[in-house]
Amino acid sequence: MEYYPAPGRNHLFVPGPTNVPEPILRAMNRSNEDHRSPAFPKLSKSVIDDVKQIFRTTTATSFIFPTTGTGAWESALTNTLSPGDKIISFRLGQFSLLWIDQMQRYNFDVDVVDCEWGAGADLDILKKKLEADYSHSVKAVCVVHNETSTGVTNDIGAVRKIMDAAKHPALLLVDGVSSIGAIDFRMDDWNVDVALTGSQKALSLPTGLGIVCASPKALEAAKKSTSTRVFFDWGDYLKFYKAGTYWPYTPSSQMLYGLRASLDMILNEEGLDNVIARHCRLAEATRQAVKAWGLTLCTKDHKWKSDTVTAVVVPSWLDSGDIVKIAYKKYNLSLGVGLNKIAGKVFRIGHLGNVNELQMLGALAGVELALREVGYPVTLGSGVAAAQAHLAKKTPLIASRI
Amino acid sequence: MEYYPAPGRNHLFVPGPTNVPEPILRAMNRSNEDHRSPAFPKLSKSVIDDVKQIFRTTTATSFIFPTTGTGAWESALTNTLSPGDKIISFRLGQFSLLWIDQMQRYNFDVDVVDCEWGAGADLDILKKKLEADYSHSVKAVCVVHNETSTGVTNDIGAVRKIMDAAKHPALLLVDGVSSIGAIDFRMDDWNVDVALTGSQKALSLPTGLGIVCASPKALEAAKKSTSTRVFFDWGDYLKFYKAGTYWPYTPSSQMLYGLRASLDMILNEEGLDNVIARHCRLAEATRQAVKAWGLTLCTKDHKWKSDTVTAVVVPSWLDSGDIVKIAYKKYNLSLGVGLNKIAGKVFRIGHLGNVNELQMLGALAGVELALREVGYPVTLGSGVAAAQAHLAKKTPLIASRI
Amino acid sequence: MEYYPAPGRNHLFVPGPTNVPEPILRAMNRSNEDHRSPAFPKLSKSVIDDVKQIFRTTTATSFIFPTTGTGAWESALTNTLSPGDKIISFRLGQFSLLWIDQMQRYNFDVDVVDCEWGAGADLDILKKKLEADYSHSVKAVCVVHNETSTGVTNDIGAVRKIMDAAKHPALLLVDGVSSIGAIDFRMDDWNVDVALTGSQKALSLPTGLGIVCASPKALEAAKKSTSTRVFFDWGDYLKFYKAGTYWPYTPSSQMLYGLRASLDMILNEEGLDNVIARHCRLAEATRQAVKAWGLTLCTKDHKWKSDTVTAVVVPSWLDSGDIVKIAYKKYNLSLGVGLNKIAGKVFRIGHLGNVNELQMLGALAGVELALREVGYPVTLGSGVAAAQAHLAKKTPLIASRI
Amino acid sequence: MEYYPAPGRNHLFVPGPTNVPEPILRAMNRSNEDHRSPAFPKLSKSVIDDVKQIFRTTTATSFIFPTTGTGAWESALTNTLSPGDKIISFRLGQFSLLWIDQMQRYNFDVDVVDCEWGAGADLDILKKKLEADYSHSVKAVCVVHNETSTGVTNDIGAVRKIMDAAKHPALLLVDGVSSIGAIDFRMDDWNVDVALTGSQKALSLPTGLGIVCASPKALEAAKKSTSTRVFFDWGDYLKFYKAGTYWPYTPSSQMLYGLRASLDMILNEEGLDNVIARHCRLAEATRQAVKAWGLTLCTKDHKWKSDTVTAVVVPSWLDSGDIVKIAYKKYNLSLGVGLNKIAGKVFRIGHLGNVNELQMLGALAGVELALREVGYPVTLGSGVAAAQAHLAKKTPLIASRI
Repeated sequence: MEYYPAPGRNHLFVPGPTNVPEPILRAMNRSNEDHRSPAFPKLSKSVIDDVKQIFRTTTATSFIFPTTGTGAWESALTNTLSPGDKIISFRLGQFSLLWIDQMQRYNFDVDVVDCEWGAGADLDILKKKLEADYSHSVKAVCVVHNETSTGVTNDIGAVRKIMDAAKHPALLLVDGVSSIGAIDFRMDDWNVDVALTGSQKALSLPTGLGIVCASPKALEAAKKSTSTRVFFDWGDYLKFYKAGTYWPYTPSSQMLYGLRASLDMILNEEGLDNVIARHCRLAEATRQAVKAWGLTLCTKDHKWKSDTVTAVVVPSWLDSGDIVKIAYKKYNLSLGVGLNKIAGKVFRIGHLGNVNELQMLGALAGVELALREVGYPVTLGSGVAAAQAHLAKKTPLIASRI
Repeated sequence: MEYYPAPGRNHLFVPGPTNVPEPILRAMNRSNEDHRSPAFPKLSKSVIDDVKQIFRTTTATSFIFPTTGTGAWESALTNTLSPGDKIISFRLGQFSLLWIDQMQRYNFDVDVVDCEWGAGADLDILKKKLEADYSHSVKAVCVVHNETSTGVTNDIGAVRKIMDAAKHPALLLVDGVSSIGAIDFRMDDWNVDVALTGSQKALSLPTGLGIVCASPKALEAAKKSTSTRVFFDWGDYLKFYKAGTYWPYTPSSQMLYGLRASLDMILNEEGLDNVIARHCRLAEATRQAVKAWGLTLCTKDHKWKSDTVTAVVVPSWLDSGDIVKIAYKKYNLSLGVGLNKIAGKVFRIGHLGNVNELQMLGALAGVELALREVGYPVTLGSGVAAAQAHLAKKTPLIASRI
Repeated sequence: MEYYPAPGRNHLFVPGPTNVPEPILRAMNRSNEDHRSPAFPKLSKSVIDDVKQIFRTTTATSFIFPTTGTGAWESALTNTLSPGDKIISFRLGQFSLLWIDQMQRYNFDVDVVDCEWGAGADLDILKKKLEADYSHSVKAVCVVHNETSTGVTNDIGAVRKIMDAAKHPALLLVDGVSSIGAIDFRMDDWNVDVALTGSQKALSLPTGLGIVCASPKALEAAKKSTSTRVFFDWGDYLKFYKAGTYWPYTPSSQMLYGLRASLDMILNEEGLDNVIARHCRLAEATRQAVKAWGLTLCTKDHKWKSDTVTAVVVPSWLDSGDIVKIAYKKYNLSLGVGLNKIAGKVFRIGHLGNVNELQMLGALAGVELALREVGYPVTLGSGVAAAQAHLAKKTPLIASRI
Repeated sequence: MEYYPAPGRNHLFVPGPTNVPEPILRAMNRSNEDHRSPAFPKLSKSVIDDVKQIFRTTTATSFIFPTTGTGAWESALTNTLSPGDKIISFRLGQFSLLWIDQMQRYNFDVDVVDCEWGAGADLDILKKKLEADYSHSVKAVCVVHNETSTGVTNDIGAVRKIMDAAKHPALLLVDGVSSIGAIDFRMDDWNVDVALTGSQKALSLPTGLGIVCASPKALEAAKKSTSTRVFFDWGDYLKFYKAGTYWPYTPSSQMLYGLRASLDMILNEEGLDNVIARHCRLAEATRQAVKAWGLTLCTKDHKWKSDTVTAVVVPSWLDSGDIVKIAYKKYNLSLGVGLNKIAGKVFRIGHLGNVNELQMLGALAGVELALREVGYPVTLGSGVAAAQAHLAKKTPLIASRI
């Protein structure tokens, strides 16, 4: 049964969940199997190992939880920190806000650094705070790499440099939900202690896997953390890793086969560097379109530009929610609304996951049509043309077809 | 295994096979079943009956053959005509050419009316020929409704009027492979005797069903036809229809479930009139784009415009095949090449089946990029803008989402 | 890629994950969609509402978590209890053991009643404990309805009667992971406060949904619970229920469509009573087979017999793991091993979820062959014959085919 | 929508269509693609080449038609013979009868050798006829390798020997619809001129491909055949083979990917010899069961035993159709009915395609239950036990799991 049928494909341009490509749908089209069979560990090991490549880490340990990004956050916090532990974190959009809310509800002592929505983490403040923390009371710095609500990408390498300069031993915990596998993320180079993502973003899978990578230092911290945890506990996983059976409780075999297919596509077929370059290309094309429309980005400065989501500010006389609604109701185009304090003020175009140039251009054409529907004086084709101009320069031949 | 992987979806804009929507893929995702079970006839009857609605006939009998359009042609001819029978047919593109080739190889006496490729059937000649045929030696008039190679739609209603005016008893056989279910086709109103289509076109199914509807007069003719036939014989089907088991040999249950899903989408969800209006809208948008690019249609006159395929003539210094190649190799866009005598001179954009506005605009954006790649001086965005302007006026809200 | 190919189907007779039937695979065969679209709540509401029918409750509130049974346990405990709260719980198999372990790690004060593995919960002890608890220091009684490791079903109705007789206000928390939707479960009749299950059991879905139903009294308790929780918090869900958007974080739309299909099959096609009768029939057939083989059940008394899993004790000179291994390696039959203290001593046959008579008989034939392989002197066909005799008497005609 | 839902899987034991295994369903779960893309020939060539391995030929040319076995028959006849040509053929069951009917309707001069249904082709008669045919007026000998209606396998090697001994130049045309890929078939060793099969049998695909292999001598004959043909013409294919585009009309890409998966499973994973051994094993097990039930085979002599289908004769006071009906209505077991002159007298158990031991045993258990339902005094478990005894001896370990 279709609940809300429409001719043709849905154009899914929210910043996650993302389009699931056919090879992944095929890989997942299967009945259940016994995850305790003598054969299953081969698949398990292959994804647990290879998923680390999209984090660009060889030193970390990966955990694949049957959960969402929210659960992955919880796993990151409760395994490494104890109630009352001091955390510095930046509140600069809806998802960093929610993570901080979670930290507070877990009774961590969060030193919240509020930044303007649309700006990145204020690293000067971080620098000052760390330098002033002689006693090393701060146990963790928590940063959202890419704030999905505002289209802001923080510079994690710079965070690391500040921490190193201050010789501060705090853990660095990074939410890479809407970045890892799409925007360059270098867990080992940046000495990130815990990094995490979800399956329904760059990996182009259904929702259902929260993937957490923990550095040796984070694993060490986990031994001392007194936060209560069972479902999200790393220790339970490690026990089963040791036993070679891998799963403390039943995994979704479908999702693991899907993950295998996703990793094959990213790592072996397209190549991670090319995936990142594609995201960069589509994102810049989108920004060129926004500019051509005479609209501005929510992102306050180019240095924070996000290559997975573009948040577009609408004129004050418009409700951005109306654009999203009409796009869906007339053109089967799914865009992201503005959240919380920027509700009604921005709409968001996701360009994340397994998507290509012409899908993007179709979506941008749809945004133009939606803008016109709500009365914004857009020149039809203007944004598409600007995006095309960029893509014409940057798009390579498809490797398998040369 | 993927043979030629590329990021994102393939943009399939050949005039068939067409995009298979998810509800159809879902319906077909099943193991085999016993077509002789007491339960199977219920499904069989439902599709055999309902498929007639897309032909707009209540008087004809439908036959669903496990074959392609070529086989459906063969079924139409061999059931109604005997070797040596005289046929008038029009050769005005690759598919009418192939059908005529088939007629000749089956030893029918074909009076071929050659028309310019890009023009429709010359109905004045038909009129003269029928009027001159006092002895009614002509047994059939065979017309391709929509010539897929040139983007030409013939006026079948006008053909019928000429036949009626001449009081000529010849059968009217119509190839509706790339029209039925997409362009208005009125089997009963036009007294078409045999009409046929294939599953991989407007029905948006995989290849594999050749669907033939036969008028009572055609069924009568079948009793006298001496053409040899077994696999494509209507009589075998009729015997099994009578027995209530429907299939003289094994059908593909997957294709029948897929057909059921397709008919549900066309007849019950979107509505056949709306489907036709959508094709009309996307086709006109495409023609507006072609005009904006400064290119011309292969179709010589607007009265023959095709709402399922647009054949675009390229300047003589260009090879249209290069456009098709680069579109596929760089933008994962599949366009149709020029066939036979117009090879290299035209490329074709299909707008057929389960496709919507933004898919179309994405494809048009891709054509622009491909044109530029081969050196044609196109203004990026110009065709998209022209198409958008038309769609902005004509696209209704999606019924299920109002 | 197949990791361990074998001809024919895998015979999946572990007590979960269970066979996923084709209609559910079809329903799930889809790309992602925007769970924030104006249309999505219709689907969400339908499954949140209807899933309560398999718990036989109209008064409880249901929560569908993207998690496993382990997560559902955690949700049940942390929402209703506060650290230090006293719980009475029965340890009589691996899964009750693990739940108790979770309780202890969450710092609840668990009064563990150890029972023989193979026996049910000792309700006399419960009675005594509750009667002695004048101060009502016991906050919850936690029972596993069906202990999957030993094939023991506890009498929840009797637990309720004891609690009522003692006029004890403790909450009744029930793990129905391997029972609900297969064995009669009456949440409202038995005044269960929290009941829970997982998608990969009776619902015949992939792993990934932990489904929790909470009575009004449990919801009231949740307001006072001081256990830390975010991902598993009911309050977050209730906020979104109120808003009509249903999900505090991204759900798996595929799993929700799958759940919709599962509920349709159970509630509308087969009927819950018939589903339960089928489980009862297959279970008794299995027990008859075990008896015919001259083997005994792990279940110590018929009153505790489980209709979803049969744990079979092997002679002491045999290692039950060898039976499981050879069944998988030679006959593509997946059985459950013995866990923890009964490892090597029992193997388990699941008869749970969307499975029918001949699938069961095929599996029993396979068990016979495996028994023979390991040297147990079984008469081939003996167990199958005994099972057939029972099924011949009890199996009804398939309703849709009469 | 399910038309006739039932719990659990359908047990499909008709002798085709056969069970489609998950890897094939996965391979086919895809939208259409452009078969004229520069990339498609790679897939086409791989299946056109490799399918020959299941015919055990390196010298023949293969043609994959979008049709059924009936169409493949037609292709074999019309490409090699001219109207009036003399054919010797054996009528010994429903499918040889239908093929002969086709030959006659195509105006070939068929010398029909009627044999008892249940017996194989009378090769003594063939010998006499060929020896007497000094003028070589006989142009073809047409034999059904495995007569699906009676469970009779003819000895094609012996046919070849007789033809060779008689030094007769007639073509040898063989219907291998229910044998090739399951029963040993040696096209090259036996100098078969045309051999054919259908996708829905040993290949375990949906219906829709008729696969024909033609020897060099058959290809030579095709040049002279005056039978009218277009859709089934080899010449059209050969033209496209030469061009490297392979398909004279649109193929089903889904079926080709499915065929690729099927060939991978048969040739690379299990191995053709093992596939044949498995069919042999399951067939003998079935025959042992029939014997244990006190029933007899339709097959008159062991030398004609079929390893893909067992036709079982029921006592005269029983209607075999009732067994088939109750098996379907109560146990979701699909068996084959008796056809034509043996209608009501036999029922058929298919053991063909991707099926394993426990599936077979489940089906045999179902047959026992159905026999009992109709009043036949069967000892439950007796047939299963006999089958198990054979399988216990013959079943190897699964190669990938050793």
